Amino acid sequence: MQNFTFHNPTRILFGQGRIADISREIPAGARVLITYGGGSVVKTGTLNEVKAALKDFTLFEFAGIEPNPTYETLMQAVELARREQIDFLLAVGGGSVIDGTKFIAAAIPFAGEPWDILAKQAEIKSAIPFGSVLTLPATGSEMNSGAVITRRASNDKLVFLSDLVYPLFSVLDPTKTYTLPERQVANGVVDAFVHIAEQYLTYPSDAKVQDRFAEGLLLTLIEEGPRALQEPDNYAVRANLMWTATLALNGLIGAGVPQDWATHMLGHELTALHGLDHAQTLAVVLPAMLQVRREEKREKLLQYAERVWGLREGNAEVRIDQAIKYTRQFFEKMHVSTRLSDYGIGSDAIPALVAQLQRHGMTALGEHQNLDIKRSQQVYELAV
Amino acid sequence: MQNFTFHNPTRILFGQGRIADISREIPAGARVLITYGGGSVVKTGTLNEVKAALKDFTLFEFAGIEPNPTYETLMQAVELARREQIDFLLAVGGGSVIDGTKFIAAAIPFAGEPWDILAKQAEIKSAIPFGSVLTLPATGSEMNSGAVITRRASNDKLVFLSDLVYPLFSVLDPTKTYTLPERQVANGVVDAFVHIAEQYLTYPSDAKVQDRFAEGLLLTLIEEGPRALQEPDNYAVRANLMWTATLALNGLIGAGVPQDWATHMLGHELTALHGLDHAQTLAVVLPAMLQVRREEKREKLLQYAERVWGLREGNAEVRIDQAIKYTRQFFEKMHVSTRLSDYGIGSDAIPALVAQLQRHGMTALGEHQNLDIKRSQQVYELAV
Repeated sequence: MQNFTFHNPTRILFGQGRIADISREIPAGARVLITYGGGSVVKTGTLNEVKAALKDFTLFEFAGIEPNPTYETLMQAVELARREQIDFLLAVGGGSVIDGTKFIAAAIPFAGEPWDILAKQAEIKSAIPFGSVLTLPATGSEMNSGAVITRRASNDKLVFLSDLVYPLFSVLDPTKTYTLPERQVANGVVDAFVHIAEQYLTYPSDAKVQDRFAEGLLLTLIEEGPRALQEPDNYAVRANLMWTATLALNGLIGAGVPQDWATHMLGHELTALHGLDHAQTLAVVLPAMLQVRREEKREKLLQYAERVWGLREGNAEVRIDQAIKYTRQFFEKMHVSTRLSDYGIGSDAIPALVAQLQRHGMTALGEHQNLDIKRSQQVYELAV
Repeated sequence: MQNFTFHNPTRILFGQGRIADISREIPAGARVLITYGGGSVVKTGTLNEVKAALKDFTLFEFAGIEPNPTYETLMQAVELARREQIDFLLAVGGGSVIDGTKFIAAAIPFAGEPWDILAKQAEIKSAIPFGSVLTLPATGSEMNSGAVITRRASNDKLVFLSDLVYPLFSVLDPTKTYTLPERQVANGVVDAFVHIAEQYLTYPSDAKVQDRFAEGLLLTLIEEGPRALQEPDNYAVRANLMWTATLALNGLIGAGVPQDWATHMLGHELTALHGLDHAQTLAVVLPAMLQVRREEKREKLLQYAERVWGLREGNAEVRIDQAIKYTRQFFEKMHVSTRLSDYGIGSDAIPALVAQLQRHGMTALGEHQNLDIKRSQQVYELAV
């Protein structure tokens, strides 16, 4: 096991009806800016439920945070918050709204140009405190300190991390996920699955607990993901998916183990240039990534084949092939296509994708920092 | 899954050499009281390592916190801390030292008689901040908010819980466990095992993640526990045991599921009246407890039999018998005896044990609150 520091201060309020408890989590007298995306939290009544719970606070609203939240949009919220002297933010939505709210929280008190937080990894010295009400289990943003922000003007999709942007609290009410469109449910399951894969499918590091936790989360997604599509208002299914997606990226299974994240980096360029959903990019890249790097990931792929897919018989190479095939089939079963060509993207798109990777300095990716531009190109080619 | 709130603010510094990092975790200028037990942290050099790391602080020491830490001893530390205006505590040791330090932290600013924190569950309004350097993986106290304190004068062993007594940080350096006596290593493994059992072997509650995490921790203890006795300086083994024991009782696997804790309650009386090690009491009580309550725990016992012990064939009753038998054999393999008679305790001791339970109000124990005095007596009888 590698040395690690683990610290996750977010308070999770899990279960039906927990929105009613949020007023206790926000300092009395706070001027609260509620941030959200499109109209779904309005339509489902969740926004009204939140406002009712916060009737004793001075409330402001900022709507319109888009999937793959953009700097351009978020800076409008920053201006509003500065003007109205907001001292607490409340994100109501999925990972994009929460990620965007993290950026808003950090940008409000930031002295310079806030884009530097992403482009130059400028140090954040303070952030406005915030909480979240999660409506879409997927990214884990509700219990971690990272955010991915896109700059529309330059097609950049970049990450920042800071201990100052852990949500103070997050409400996880599984019933809020009943009305999600199938595509968002499916994307969420794939997203969580690949988060786990990035922290698990590397090389052995004598981390038995982390491995077993990762495997437990993967098995839960495999069992419950398809059921969520078939039985959208099954509370137990939704609860297990919601808690799994949070634990998939809250620092726990990644503590003390090598991490990969190359699939995410190659995926980000697909969203930036072609507008694919984040999860679609992961479903496309992961199977090809595992194939290209099967030698360096051999031991963990065999463990994955056995413990997650029950593959114990026969030749090791066949078991690895089968595990990769089952991974692809699982994504397809969630109705998320796994080939670039399924999204109308051909080999001719690859040079531009590779150029983006180069421009973003993504030239030594993965747990061994050995995925160079040439091998990334192979991954894209295999993904067509 | 049941509704739950999960919040664990303790920062874990895991790995070899992490004691060097603690000075950054303590406010500059703090007057720090280092608390510890017997001489082992002196003998092994851990105390000196801690003092070297804290050379820029004003340090005080309180030695002599015993296993099953007593109110009588701890109040001496409270007096010292009040006199010397201590503003940070640092526990160096195992669960008893950390538990004791939690009580000291809460008692220092407590207005009334501190024993009321235990006897009357008096509310704690503040506590002195503290950290820990763990030398013995077992109780999980390094990352939770509970403590068990004994009053020698009255043979009371009581629990208190408060969000104010989470350690600010805990150092988990697996190399610090290399020199532990075999009995302490074995006790630690049994203690962690039974902590998991108390949160897992109840009844199904559609909590797939919590179940799989619990099973993962149990499997790790079963694999690594005996190896720790055979290869005391195997870093990977020690690291896995250390992280497992912490995760066994940090709130994670118990969030959203029913919990039992009857084995602990019956065990506490054995320590109070007969001086058995805490883990010895658990090893004695758990197999008998599972036998007496096999009907109400049937579904989870079958799941445990299959997923933890690989028992998939044959009659359900036989699988349950076998799972209980394997549990007992595992404790014995760790050289912890599992019968009261092994410790020289016979049936004649049971009336006094039962009277203690009655006096402490332990008359409706377990996840169904249906373990009354009569059934507790059956458990003790079966444990002879």
